[in-house]
Amino acid sequence: MRPSGRALDQMRDITIDVGVTRHAEGSCMIRCGDTHVLCTASLEERVPPFLRNTGQGWVTAEYGMLPRATTTRMRREAQAGKQSGRTQEIQRLIGRSLRAGIDRNALGERQITVDCDVIQADGGTRCAAITGGWVALRLALDKLMKAGDIVTDPMVDHVAAVSCGIYAGQAVLDLDYPEDSEAGTDGNFVMTGDGRMIELQASAEGATFSRDQFAELMALADKGIADLVAAQKAAIA
Amino acid sequence: MRPSGRALDQMRDITIDVGVTRHAEGSCMIRCGDTHVLCTASLEERVPPFLRNTGQGWVTAEYGMLPRATTTRMRREAQAGKQSGRTQEIQRLIGRSLRAGIDRNALGERQITVDCDVIQADGGTRCAAITGGWVALRLALDKLMKAGDIVTDPMVDHVAAVSCGIYAGQAVLDLDYPEDSEAGTDGNFVMTGDGRMIELQASAEGATFSRDQFAELMALADKGIADLVAAQKAAIA
Amino acid sequence: MRPSGRALDQMRDITIDVGVTRHAEGSCMIRCGDTHVLCTASLEERVPPFLRNTGQGWVTAEYGMLPRATTTRMRREAQAGKQSGRTQEIQRLIGRSLRAGIDRNALGERQITVDCDVIQADGGTRCAAITGGWVALRLALDKLMKAGDIVTDPMVDHVAAVSCGIYAGQAVLDLDYPEDSEAGTDGNFVMTGDGRMIELQASAEGATFSRDQFAELMALADKGIADLVAAQKAAIA
Amino acid sequence: MRPSGRALDQMRDITIDVGVTRHAEGSCMIRCGDTHVLCTASLEERVPPFLRNTGQGWVTAEYGMLPRATTTRMRREAQAGKQSGRTQEIQRLIGRSLRAGIDRNALGERQITVDCDVIQADGGTRCAAITGGWVALRLALDKLMKAGDIVTDPMVDHVAAVSCGIYAGQAVLDLDYPEDSEAGTDGNFVMTGDGRMIELQASAEGATFSRDQFAELMALADKGIADLVAAQKAAIA
Amino acid sequence: MRPSGRALDQMRDITIDVGVTRHAEGSCMIRCGDTHVLCTASLEERVPPFLRNTGQGWVTAEYGMLPRATTTRMRREAQAGKQSGRTQEIQRLIGRSLRAGIDRNALGERQITVDCDVIQADGGTRCAAITGGWVALRLALDKLMKAGDIVTDPMVDHVAAVSCGIYAGQAVLDLDYPEDSEAGTDGNFVMTGDGRMIELQASAEGATFSRDQFAELMALADKGIADLVAAQKAAIA
Amino acid sequence: MRPSGRALDQMRDITIDVGVTRHAEGSCMIRCGDTHVLCTASLEERVPPFLRNTGQGWVTAEYGMLPRATTTRMRREAQAGKQSGRTQEIQRLIGRSLRAGIDRNALGERQITVDCDVIQADGGTRCAAITGGWVALRLALDKLMKAGDIVTDPMVDHVAAVSCGIYAGQAVLDLDYPEDSEAGTDGNFVMTGDGRMIELQASAEGATFSRDQFAELMALADKGIADLVAAQKAAIA
Repeated sequence: MRPSGRALDQMRDITIDVGVTRHAEGSCMIRCGDTHVLCTASLEERVPPFLRNTGQGWVTAEYGMLPRATTTRMRREAQAGKQSGRTQEIQRLIGRSLRAGIDRNALGERQITVDCDVIQADGGTRCAAITGGWVALRLALDKLMKAGDIVTDPMVDHVAAVSCGIYAGQAVLDLDYPEDSEAGTDGNFVMTGDGRMIELQASAEGATFSRDQFAELMALADKGIADLVAAQKAAIA
Repeated sequence: MRPSGRALDQMRDITIDVGVTRHAEGSCMIRCGDTHVLCTASLEERVPPFLRNTGQGWVTAEYGMLPRATTTRMRREAQAGKQSGRTQEIQRLIGRSLRAGIDRNALGERQITVDCDVIQADGGTRCAAITGGWVALRLALDKLMKAGDIVTDPMVDHVAAVSCGIYAGQAVLDLDYPEDSEAGTDGNFVMTGDGRMIELQASAEGATFSRDQFAELMALADKGIADLVAAQKAAIA
Repeated sequence: MRPSGRALDQMRDITIDVGVTRHAEGSCMIRCGDTHVLCTASLEERVPPFLRNTGQGWVTAEYGMLPRATTTRMRREAQAGKQSGRTQEIQRLIGRSLRAGIDRNALGERQITVDCDVIQADGGTRCAAITGGWVALRLALDKLMKAGDIVTDPMVDHVAAVSCGIYAGQAVLDLDYPEDSEAGTDGNFVMTGDGRMIELQASAEGATFSRDQFAELMALADKGIADLVAAQKAAIA
Repeated sequence: MRPSGRALDQMRDITIDVGVTRHAEGSCMIRCGDTHVLCTASLEERVPPFLRNTGQGWVTAEYGMLPRATTTRMRREAQAGKQSGRTQEIQRLIGRSLRAGIDRNALGERQITVDCDVIQADGGTRCAAITGGWVALRLALDKLMKAGDIVTDPMVDHVAAVSCGIYAGQAVLDLDYPEDSEAGTDGNFVMTGDGRMIELQASAEGATFSRDQFAELMALADKGIADLVAAQKAAIA
Repeated sequence: MRPSGRALDQMRDITIDVGVTRHAEGSCMIRCGDTHVLCTASLEERVPPFLRNTGQGWVTAEYGMLPRATTTRMRREAQAGKQSGRTQEIQRLIGRSLRAGIDRNALGERQITVDCDVIQADGGTRCAAITGGWVALRLALDKLMKAGDIVTDPMVDHVAAVSCGIYAGQAVLDLDYPEDSEAGTDGNFVMTGDGRMIELQASAEGATFSRDQFAELMALADKGIADLVAAQKAAIA
Repeated sequence: MRPSGRALDQMRDITIDVGVTRHAEGSCMIRCGDTHVLCTASLEERVPPFLRNTGQGWVTAEYGMLPRATTTRMRREAQAGKQSGRTQEIQRLIGRSLRAGIDRNALGERQITVDCDVIQADGGTRCAAITGGWVALRLALDKLMKAGDIVTDPMVDHVAAVSCGIYAGQAVLDLDYPEDSEAGTDGNFVMTGDGRMIELQASAEGATFSRDQFAELMALADKGIADLVAAQKAAIA
């Protein structure tokens, strides 16, 4: 039995509100249960040095967490003077995932930075950030296309992410914090709208896992991704 | 004529939503027009070293701005590796202001950290942070009193803050960003609910200002503070 | 009764020795009682990026304190790896104050950096830094004009600063450290030679203050500024 | 055809020399083709704060690369003033992987730090670090057991890691740098000696990957891990 | 011919004013020609961790330079966020040199920090810092002995330092900045009052040097140290 | 009697293996007894800003130590976030020493960075780094000359370094760690192949030293340098 009473293959409620901030080219607030992430996409007409004069664009991401997004207040990274290894690992994952859904030639020499700031955390923040970040990115691209700055849509497909894990010996979908902190194995699955894989990460915490268990997690992820892509479609409709 | 069409002594619309985050002991989202600040109060049962074994508590504040809270994306301070001078100046002001409304003996040896994170900026963020920060602090104290951890209410009075300035030669109340960036003089006024002063800051930007102009700013501030205190009262009712 | 035996409206002795260091374009040692600040003005024929090709110049300031300027040795900021929030707040104030006395078009595209280093501290170091910093700046401008590099004097008026506060319930002028550390309210007043205001900062420490008390502080500040401007005039004569 | 001429499922030559440094409790130099990593295990009779008085031990890892381990010299992280996101991600992976092979209760309250320093890099450094790090850890545990400080062997099983990827459209085992820099998908597989999974990471670079492709990578990894575990066994024999 | 017109073995004028700052336990301003260094000795009744409960004391030193001590303004180290390699090298030298003159058992478990801040630089700042630092240390020890906190004088002998170098092919004593920046070899000699050696550093800049040249530098150093020790004696008389 | 049983003027065994890393333009592993340092020379076709358009090249050095090169594991500098004062002092010494053997005009506008990384430490690491660094530099220059990029050999002479000290009251050559940690005086001597001096550093640790003692150290150094230069010649033959 899951602490939340959810079925093993049941996602938390997903809501994605778009246009929540006035300045960003694209923005949304994604809520996966009690995990709330504000995603903004910011456009700049310049690219990193290694892409200058290549005709290609870049999509990058940054991740942060408000100090009291968590049960216990955490130290503000700006005051600690550096981003933690965990933060850097997550924002590199978000950036790689979103780039996998983009044709960088079609984007042209411009950069879009997707900021994912966790307002409230209850597990699965990196997955919510990828799923919401895609929506913010989609909206920013819509704006560019509407303005005629881009002719061909650089967006190849949806990109969404979900976590699955082995909790109390059973494979469960979309771990919340009480599950995540107890899970024996924890995985993040990033996929496209048509079910191809972008990134897989599965990690044993304490106990190792078998091929069969991994296959169960993968099957759950397929179901979760479908729900998330549906929520993305509804949000941008 | 003000860019927003407001009267010279007219505040922007103020809304304060309380209980907006699940983990913090007190929280609110304050919106002063397009300036939106999330304020959370976090309780810890320990005090800074200089207060140990004094029986006194401490209230401190931290301030941050999401990278795309502003018109143009700003670099994330956690990535820059330090808080800017401006950030530090603002969070020191918020902390001093809130402490002025507290009886630290009645609080007892515990610390409350008020985090003020700007979600969207349109001028006056430090004033909104103080006004909203007071609400978050009030709610955290209510929780402590309800639990019986504190007997005497440590809150002495309301604390609120408003900016006034000389814009296009005239004293105006509650500057928004277009006014703030053009103002010849810019002031922040922090007061108690009964109109006593906690902190005054007035700064000439380019042109100096006279005693009469300062008196006009002060009169406007009185009006603004009254509106803000009324909004605080409504929020915590 | 003040610890030093001074009258309520009595400044400490002020001496300003000019030309105290060989390399700087302008320099002075200002002594306000036991507070001693070495001020140097350094000229560079370049401006910050945001002023390039505008024809305007820039004046900026930096502030430091020798580790044993204070009663107890303080950690060297260069070793701590960062300037404290207090240091940054003070040097931003000095820079803003000095810029208010300058016509930046007349200065032309060059930058003057005013370094204010506290050799010995006994309260009021930021005010002494502004008052002495103005003298160093004046001397550097004299040198530029004498060399024919500038035709119109960019200096619009004197700039001086003094602290006032409520000590033991009474408004007093020019707080020394024993007063400053006990004062209920502490204010810094930066004015021009003709008595117009550049910057006001008044801060309650523990107790709030009333309008009447603020008016008393302002009146004391007028007297103090007059004395400081007279000392500046004597120094550069 | 692979640049090195290897078969699709062919590992590079593996050599593991043990006892290569005099001070460490355990050490080895692992060479996977032209990738050379020096691994040392350092024992401390203390644990991180969160484990004090729990009776449990800790295994952690750090990763570094000499500046000229790579084709082009890279900036020394000690001079840059921080470890890159990549470095932190890798050393967190190594630590998690090695801990999965350890019974931390049997280890007792002591910490072993495994340092993995890349002397020469040609792709697959994180996998070599895990495989060699296990050997260094094994040797340090042998020393502890021989001295009678530990009674029950805390080592549960071998831990080894290998990379696989889609290169030029085909699944290949043990990518070297020329392959790694061109691979469409790149994965790291960390397993135990008996073939259970500790960590899976697979990442699309540019192109997404299918379930079938992933299954191919997994099969290759099984073969590679078997070779690596055999090399570990030979090294510690 | 030396730029200053001095004889080859002629020191610059030396003045040492003691008691120049009010708070430090010992202080002096040493002037060697146009090189001016403020030295303060600060006493703390605690020692670094490695000396706790050993009965031994510690003497350490820190070195800084005001930004405009030099011909061209240098960036403030507190703003750069770190002390340069040069600064660290110099302050380590000062600390080692002063410790060589102290019996740390006689000092007892207390630490004296000698801060050497260069107010104006014209070559030889590290040597002036050692020579002046010794005077500040002597005065702080006098204070401790007068108060009866120390019974046996921990000061074993004078410590002084002078630079010598090969300038325009000739060995010269006490290099000033114009000489220092052109010298082919540059050496610093730290000695006791009775002529024993504490530290020798000689460095070829461009050209190597011979044994005979080094012997000439040593002879000059003997003469310079004698002058400096005489100045120290006069200062503390 | 020395702990190692060596004669007073006996060096440890010296081996220098060249070409030990695949990517660097020049490389060697130098072993002086149990002190092992990997030295690589990296060529870049650019110079520091102060040398642009001067036709002159630059040689610089960096120094590092693997965390477990020492008896007790030391904190990794990349994680501490800065290089220690000791590290900076050493790498500045290596750079100055190697530059003294180079004609920078003959080198032309290119930079060679010599990285010296201590794999295992047993005293005298900076001296081994200089001696081995010279070999790596020599090999890189050979490569440049063979390729015809440089016509005149920029190498003027051999550069080697050795430590000597007063151990148990006697002058000894080439201190190992047990001697170094007990030595009353410790010196480093950097010389050319023909016996001219580049850098001398002698430092009293606790006890001062006399002229005669220094002369003994110098004589030992002559012997040691001869052995080291012979080893360099054998290595590059």
